Amino acid sequence: MEELVISPVDHDPQGQVKQQQAAGVGILLQIMMLVLSFVLGHVLRRHRFHYLPEASGSLLIGLIVGVLANISDTETSIRTWFNFHEEFFFLFLLPPIIFQSGFSLQPKPFFSNFGAIVTFAIIGTFVASVVTGGLVYLGGSMYLMYKLPFVECLMFGALISATDPVTVLSIFQDVGTDVNLYALVFGESVLNDAMAISLYRTMSLVNRQSSSGEHFLMVVIRFLETFAGSMSAGVGVGFTSALLFKYAGLDTENLQNLECCLFVLFPYFSYMLAEGVGLSGIVSILFTGIVMKRYTFSNLSEASQSFVSSFFHLISSLAETFTFIYMGFDIAMEQHSWSHVGFILFSILFIGVARAVNVFGCAYLVNLFRQENQKIPMKHQKALWYSGLRGAMAFALALQSLHDLPEGHGQIIFTATTTIVVVTVLLIGGSTGKMLEALEVVGDDLDDSMSEGFEESDHRYVPPPFSIGASSDEDTSSSGSRFKMKLKEFHKTTTSFTALDKNFLTPFFTTNSGDGDGDGNGE
Amino acid sequence: MEELVISPVDHDPQGQVKQQQAAGVGILLQIMMLVLSFVLGHVLRRHRFHYLPEASGSLLIGLIVGVLANISDTETSIRTWFNFHEEFFFLFLLPPIIFQSGFSLQPKPFFSNFGAIVTFAIIGTFVASVVTGGLVYLGGSMYLMYKLPFVECLMFGALISATDPVTVLSIFQDVGTDVNLYALVFGESVLNDAMAISLYRTMSLVNRQSSSGEHFLMVVIRFLETFAGSMSAGVGVGFTSALLFKYAGLDTENLQNLECCLFVLFPYFSYMLAEGVGLSGIVSILFTGIVMKRYTFSNLSEASQSFVSSFFHLISSLAETFTFIYMGFDIAMEQHSWSHVGFILFSILFIGVARAVNVFGCAYLVNLFRQENQKIPMKHQKALWYSGLRGAMAFALALQSLHDLPEGHGQIIFTATTTIVVVTVLLIGGSTGKMLEALEVVGDDLDDSMSEGFEESDHRYVPPPFSIGASSDEDTSSSGSRFKMKLKEFHKTTTSFTALDKNFLTPFFTTNSGDGDGDGNGE
Repeated sequence: MEELVISPVDHDPQGQVKQQQAAGVGILLQIMMLVLSFVLGHVLRRHRFHYLPEASGSLLIGLIVGVLANISDTETSIRTWFNFHEEFFFLFLLPPIIFQSGFSLQPKPFFSNFGAIVTFAIIGTFVASVVTGGLVYLGGSMYLMYKLPFVECLMFGALISATDPVTVLSIFQDVGTDVNLYALVFGESVLNDAMAISLYRTMSLVNRQSSSGEHFLMVVIRFLETFAGSMSAGVGVGFTSALLFKYAGLDTENLQNLECCLFVLFPYFSYMLAEGVGLSGIVSILFTGIVMKRYTFSNLSEASQSFVSSFFHLISSLAETFTFIYMGFDIAMEQHSWSHVGFILFSILFIGVARAVNVFGCAYLVNLFRQENQKIPMKHQKALWYSGLRGAMAFALALQSLHDLPEGHGQIIFTATTTIVVVTVLLIGGSTGKMLEALEVVGDDLDDSMSEGFEESDHRYVPPPFSIGASSDEDTSSSGSRFKMKLKEFHKTTTSFTALDKNFLTPFFTTNSGDGDGDGNGE
Repeated sequence: MEELVISPVDHDPQGQVKQQQAAGVGILLQIMMLVLSFVLGHVLRRHRFHYLPEASGSLLIGLIVGVLANISDTETSIRTWFNFHEEFFFLFLLPPIIFQSGFSLQPKPFFSNFGAIVTFAIIGTFVASVVTGGLVYLGGSMYLMYKLPFVECLMFGALISATDPVTVLSIFQDVGTDVNLYALVFGESVLNDAMAISLYRTMSLVNRQSSSGEHFLMVVIRFLETFAGSMSAGVGVGFTSALLFKYAGLDTENLQNLECCLFVLFPYFSYMLAEGVGLSGIVSILFTGIVMKRYTFSNLSEASQSFVSSFFHLISSLAETFTFIYMGFDIAMEQHSWSHVGFILFSILFIGVARAVNVFGCAYLVNLFRQENQKIPMKHQKALWYSGLRGAMAFALALQSLHDLPEGHGQIIFTATTTIVVVTVLLIGGSTGKMLEALEVVGDDLDDSMSEGFEESDHRYVPPPFSIGASSDEDTSSSGSRFKMKLKEFHKTTTSFTALDKNFLTPFFTTNSGDGDGDGNGE
């Protein structure tokens, strides 16, 4: 239709058609990259090539296409479809990923190690943020690297302390490892995202207010408030859904679609409820996932059970893969400030140090309260230290820092973060398999014990019982025994969670009367 | 945190947090409305209350919440989450709905009536658009209503000729009706959307160019080009997917997720491919759906088959319900120009007349080429005429006309369209059940014959054989017999589609060697 030359008028339908066409091309490219990632990931996995896990592959595909698009000078109308929008990430990509984490969780190892996980995630992330921030500030003061103000150093420390669950866990699942190690790595990386966001936002407020110092306690209290509130919201939504499905009588043949529609909406409801009242959507949807898997799931009809499992698996796979592609593309497209290579190099060093302080420090703390045969072994600590790669969460927060901080500073932090993300995803992602082998924590016992129940395993250390940080009957370690005594009393006076679950929660919230484990078909 | 008063600086993290919170509240409200719609729809259906079908309910919920939000003066940051974006509708809500239409389609009744459907959709919609446009122009010239320029009248005619498949079909399914009537209503309403968009866009270009007249032929040619191109693209993508799944060997136990991920991406790929090269995504994805159901689907593993069926059903239910809520909300929020009530009233009259010309005219034409026992009976024609309610497509195009046309004119068209949408959805949607009863086309034979194969039905008129517009052996009608002869020759010389399908397509594209109908589990 070349005869249709449009004069540049105010309202331009041709332009609108063009715009929609550009959207089509943009989305088409994204779909093609997604398909390519899936196929590549499948081929590599089939050939047991662990040096390029799926996430690294997706990141590379995004990077390469991004560089090509940069060189070929693609139309901006198509490009806009590739810019990483933090809002899109936080509202649409993150929720399914985190929900699936909670939904596919094996509750026993997770809750057995709950004390350790919370210690790593809360105290550990806090320590890591402060250590990273402090070191970066010190480095700046000693003219080793570009000097940022102290609060901005802490913001950087907070955002770079968010570790990514996706890549490492997929390798862990592939090669198989100890359930307790898996639970630790998994739990820490999911929960510390929430901590990192919270810390980052609080620091960013402190930075606005420009009177720091006294606010340190406030940060901690605020985080704890947010965490407890979000967890309650998530658990509340989960239990509500369990009751709804128990009594609505939707588990009949022809109502499967309605049942699934409602089930699928609940997690998102939980996330948005928490975000809407200013809490953490991530924490909320994580606990909704755990509760819905444990209670709501068993109230569904059998067909719906298998459907929703596959559904969330599918959606989270798509979201995960897309996130890495999207990130790779955006890294190739955004402006970077490469004038401060020193900053980047020292940052990488410092986050290694900070993570060491976090992991080994917290492990020491946790081991103080554990029996001899329950202590976290050194090789697990090393594996945990090594697993701290940075992914989409750090990237999204760094992108936000571009808006939050004055020009140059935001740029430096963003460039450093993207470099760290690319380096850790490619290097750590590629070598995790080897690392697990070297540490001799490889084995196919993950899959076995996950499907059977991990208590029978006698060649590994025994996990602590199903209660937060409390030890069981015998006394072994000497230090911290007074605190331990208190915890033990607490443990004895309250009903243990397992009993509570079996006697009250399961009969009340589900249609099964007995115990009925029902978590054998996770994944 | 009331002590944190933020000064209005350039980069405002508090503002960003606020914005995300607003997004949370907005999406939360949407989810709640979705849940409410599903529950309401379920309750009404269970009590066989056909006066308020699900779509009408959703529209009403949207309208009511919209009016409440208007009265309560909700924050604009939350409101923005409810504005109907045409782009969002065309790129994300429409594709799953149309794909599911094609995917759940019973191919036999559809292809048996293909000639009639194409006649109604292409010639009929064209006629209806021109008649509506002409009447509106005439009405304007006779000072009955506001006078719009001729091309704008035709644009209005085009956009208001897009009928909506959702509501009527759900009632048809509920009460049960003749398969041929169902196929006619279904096929016409899906295909005429594509025709209406194409006509609207072409008219809108003509309007820009302001030299109309000679372009009438161009409109037709362009539409046919677009239609043929989009159909080929859709069929091509469908066949590609069939071959991929036939040879990739993904139908093993542990690859179900990969299989489903890829399957789910193809329809979207087809839509975006067509949009990206300037064709019609709707037509393309519709045919991809038909082809994927017939060929690709049978190459999947059994678990994936049941999963993807449920998946597309779920996604399209969500998209449909959301579209009506979204539309209702936006109708309540947008500015309307109520100064031209005459325009609205006469428009309603005119679209009734235009649809009568379309349906009865085309039915006469179709019946000319059909045998006595295959003719479309009058009561079916009446039912078809009555089923022409206007929905989201007309609404989205009217919203676009606000940008395309000068101020006042766009407003008038928009207000008229929204009124027509609300009136037809509520009135026609509410009375379709009664109408079907009155016309005596009710019966549970829809479900029966759909699952069995409709040829055995002897109490209804026999559908024409599996070929476009061609009659079978005997001669019956007198007029148009020369054209019929040609068609018959065409029909005889070419292999019939059924044989082609059985002997070549099915063995080539699927893993079954025999016929293997495999479309019994639609829906």
